[in-house]
Amino acid sequence: MVLNSIEIVYFLLSIGIILFVGRGVGELLRKFKQPIIIGEILAGIILGPTIFGSIFKDLYDLLFNYSPTINFAFNGITELSLVLLLLVLGLEIDLSLALTQGKRASLVSILGVVFPFSIGFIVAYFFPLEMGIKDYAMRLPFSLFVGTALSITALPVAAKALMDLNIFKTEIGMLIITSAMFNDLIGWIVFSIIIGMLGYSTHSLELHWLLITLAVFVGVILLIGRKIINYVIPKLEKHASYPGGILNFIFVLGLFCAAFTEFIGVHAIFGAFIIGIAIGDSVHLKEDTREIVQQFVTNIFAPIFFVSIGLRVNFIENFNFLLVAAFLLMSVTGKMLGSLLGAKLGGIGRENSIIIGLGLNAHGAMEIILGTIALQNNLIQPKVFVALVIMALFTSITSAQLMNFFLKRSKQLLNFIGLLKPENIFFTNASSKQEVIKELCLSISNQYKLNSEKLISEVMAREELISTGLEKHLAIPHAKMNIQNPIVALGVHKNGIDFDSLDGLPAKIIVLLITPLNDPELQLRLLAEISTTLGDAERIGKLVELTDASEFITTLKQFS
Amino acid sequence: MVLNSIEIVYFLLSIGIILFVGRGVGELLRKFKQPIIIGEILAGIILGPTIFGSIFKDLYDLLFNYSPTINFAFNGITELSLVLLLLVLGLEIDLSLALTQGKRASLVSILGVVFPFSIGFIVAYFFPLEMGIKDYAMRLPFSLFVGTALSITALPVAAKALMDLNIFKTEIGMLIITSAMFNDLIGWIVFSIIIGMLGYSTHSLELHWLLITLAVFVGVILLIGRKIINYVIPKLEKHASYPGGILNFIFVLGLFCAAFTEFIGVHAIFGAFIIGIAIGDSVHLKEDTREIVQQFVTNIFAPIFFVSIGLRVNFIENFNFLLVAAFLLMSVTGKMLGSLLGAKLGGIGRENSIIIGLGLNAHGAMEIILGTIALQNNLIQPKVFVALVIMALFTSITSAQLMNFFLKRSKQLLNFIGLLKPENIFFTNASSKQEVIKELCLSISNQYKLNSEKLISEVMAREELISTGLEKHLAIPHAKMNIQNPIVALGVHKNGIDFDSLDGLPAKIIVLLITPLNDPELQLRLLAEISTTLGDAERIGKLVELTDASEFITTLKQFS
Repeated sequence: MVLNSIEIVYFLLSIGIILFVGRGVGELLRKFKQPIIIGEILAGIILGPTIFGSIFKDLYDLLFNYSPTINFAFNGITELSLVLLLLVLGLEIDLSLALTQGKRASLVSILGVVFPFSIGFIVAYFFPLEMGIKDYAMRLPFSLFVGTALSITALPVAAKALMDLNIFKTEIGMLIITSAMFNDLIGWIVFSIIIGMLGYSTHSLELHWLLITLAVFVGVILLIGRKIINYVIPKLEKHASYPGGILNFIFVLGLFCAAFTEFIGVHAIFGAFIIGIAIGDSVHLKEDTREIVQQFVTNIFAPIFFVSIGLRVNFIENFNFLLVAAFLLMSVTGKMLGSLLGAKLGGIGRENSIIIGLGLNAHGAMEIILGTIALQNNLIQPKVFVALVIMALFTSITSAQLMNFFLKRSKQLLNFIGLLKPENIFFTNASSKQEVIKELCLSISNQYKLNSEKLISEVMAREELISTGLEKHLAIPHAKMNIQNPIVALGVHKNGIDFDSLDGLPAKIIVLLITPLNDPELQLRLLAEISTTLGDAERIGKLVELTDASEFITTLKQFS
Repeated sequence: MVLNSIEIVYFLLSIGIILFVGRGVGELLRKFKQPIIIGEILAGIILGPTIFGSIFKDLYDLLFNYSPTINFAFNGITELSLVLLLLVLGLEIDLSLALTQGKRASLVSILGVVFPFSIGFIVAYFFPLEMGIKDYAMRLPFSLFVGTALSITALPVAAKALMDLNIFKTEIGMLIITSAMFNDLIGWIVFSIIIGMLGYSTHSLELHWLLITLAVFVGVILLIGRKIINYVIPKLEKHASYPGGILNFIFVLGLFCAAFTEFIGVHAIFGAFIIGIAIGDSVHLKEDTREIVQQFVTNIFAPIFFVSIGLRVNFIENFNFLLVAAFLLMSVTGKMLGSLLGAKLGGIGRENSIIIGLGLNAHGAMEIILGTIALQNNLIQPKVFVALVIMALFTSITSAQLMNFFLKRSKQLLNFIGLLKPENIFFTNASSKQEVIKELCLSISNQYKLNSEKLISEVMAREELISTGLEKHLAIPHAKMNIQNPIVALGVHKNGIDFDSLDGLPAKIIVLLITPLNDPELQLRLLAEISTTLGDAERIGKLVELTDASEFITTLKQFS
């Protein structure tokens, strides 16, 4: 059962060509600030039956279609690549973060799933033929699939766009990321059910048993497994060879869980994804282990899968403009409506909601992976697959640009007013500079779980260097701490306290600004913004008369 | 052409089990200070038809023999693993080092190859049936194969053993490593010719054309390709994404070269090995890139291949004691004779030659890889394969122990007398401590390309701290420098120079000791050894009378 010599030649050659062309186009797109994965998918379309395969058919068949044996070998590699890719995508999900983001994130993400899902489901259910169903009897799973495909967000694409726009660390950024994680999770669970309904596995359980098994699996892995893994990793790092032992541990767990979910009738990648989340959540997993796994999988295995997508179908023959337009329209509408409503209920401004909607509308790897499996299982026609891939490419490419456009309008680049929350405004009667600083620091420390002694000493050290009391009744004591997002607290002192100001006037508004250690630029920008917004005697005069925090913020917003 | 669901389950499961059991047994053996690869091979024997497969035949067939389709997929993975493994083994070879080691290394390695090769070839040629030939018509390639299998050294095993014994950095250590590299290279070239003779590739060229093509390939890659790669790597690191771009570059080159050598009728792994050498030689290849490739391949791909070895044959059924004994005997005899003669011609002592022979006698990965290919190509019977694997395991496990035994006898643990070369003994008339130190430092700097100013200032700084003039006419000025191996130079001053000694006596023998920066223990040990050997007025009295460096060393040896 071994490949013969000439098969080995074509097998190695085809993988080499895939990696080479994938990387080449990927790097080219990177110059245009696009994610490499988009280049890899384009490379597949170029190499596949769409372009190269249609012009040089014989050469294409020789390279990628030489014998069934090679195809099986190649299929084994892509299957493994896919499992490892999902394992890595799981590793990237920060479960703890998602769990602490609470109400807002869950609202946004649930609505951000429900809306596009419902639109997709309803349209596909009532117009299955127009939407490209393969077998009319599969109407229900088909409609579920269309809904799911529309509601999934590309976490890596969204994260990349947020980082490029420098808003990854803002509240909106975290909200988008957390929502995207929830989306992924919900999407996968629904998709698993679809696959179960197809009875695509020969061993597959009845649907209700499948659901129960799945719930138990997810529960056990994420609740108990996660803790066991966190306990085992340091032991392995200590007693087994490093990083070999831990690398093997990650892969073995991934493969076993993948085999398990495939066995119960859900796709293998679901198991890999869930165990990836559980492993990635461990605080003991060292950064360099993560790095080795992540770099190797995203640079060697992932391209093999993404390029192979384009090898599956002819993207020109199966291109259907109406279908692509319909998918895009449904996706954008659904995501926008969902995010707007979710954000509204969660108390987020309208323009920010649009940004969230756009961020969540980036489709990508996940959706394409679902599409591939749906195509393989004869759930959808090739034209639907093509439409999904194009939608994924289009939304991924445009999301950063669109978000940037609205960001500029809403000026929500981590600004002072955005950071100031009503609960961080204090009306104080402190008798000295030291006292007011202490008050503000203590209340902040409590709320954000900071070391209050350290914070106070950092702020005071800065004060001793040179007073932060500015002119016109304003003071901005500040410090850098080991935090992710900047924190602002504001003290209002009706009569003013001596703050050693330049103009000798007492400080009536004291803004405590704490920024992350590694971001000196951010500190400078926020300091400048605060002094521009508040460095005006008339404004300060108005603000100190107020007695309500919300009113304070509303008034402040009118100034900027 | 895709695997069905249940095939995917068994495919993922079997790879998971292979990695799990391989790692488990590997880690167990690591506790006994054995290389992990030995554990992986044992894991395969345990999992395969020898033990698990013979007791639980049904379960074994289900897991590892479910369908031809999975077998093809699995074969694709092991083929890829093997290519990547050889790529990494190639990366580890330091061509520049090998080229600078010069005459001694080439003598030792050529003789260390010629002797075992000749013994193996002659025995196999005249007793082909006894030696387990598969097809009598294949007598010539079979004999060549046996010769090659006996003459190859396991570079990683040898390196590991040398490091465990703490003699990796000694002259003997470097000699063993360099010879092992040459052995590998020569062995592979001969093996490639054998494969060419078998006409095993459907495309294979005639033998003389094959040899010419091969020579051109190796020449082009190692002479021109190596330089191009060294030029391209920094460009890639600068302009492409890092480390993704460079990782892809390494793999793409590896796959293309592998496909090329497979195409001309040599095995794929030869191309991967040669390009690995060329890439690994680049000074621009960053350590963390190397680390990612090396860790991933040795921990994920390599185990798949090594465990799969045991899955191929039943090691109990095919165990033939006489054959194993014959192989072992031929290998040990050949290596010993070759090394002894080579070392003799290169001017190395007898006990050191035995150590070199033992070091070169460690068979391992390479030999097993050759055996696997020979078995697949019906060149050898399974019993020969089993004998080869057992020989590889046995010599790998014992080599460190045996070397240690002889090392203790010859006390060649980086000792003073071993380090002192005739050309580093100087008969001096210097008039002061400063002058003699300067003299010794300058001559050493010249010879070992050290920064002489730095060396002198380091040694003098140490002198200023407290004089290194000991009692009884001995002084040991010393310093640590950024070097690999310790260096010793010795000045003989018949009348003695004032060295601020404790007993006020002038120093007649001045030993300059320079040790590597990161090895304080080594410095202490050598200082102690020098003072024990030379801290004796009578001995010094005898030594200062000598006027010839070789005679000096001979006399010195009598003292220790």
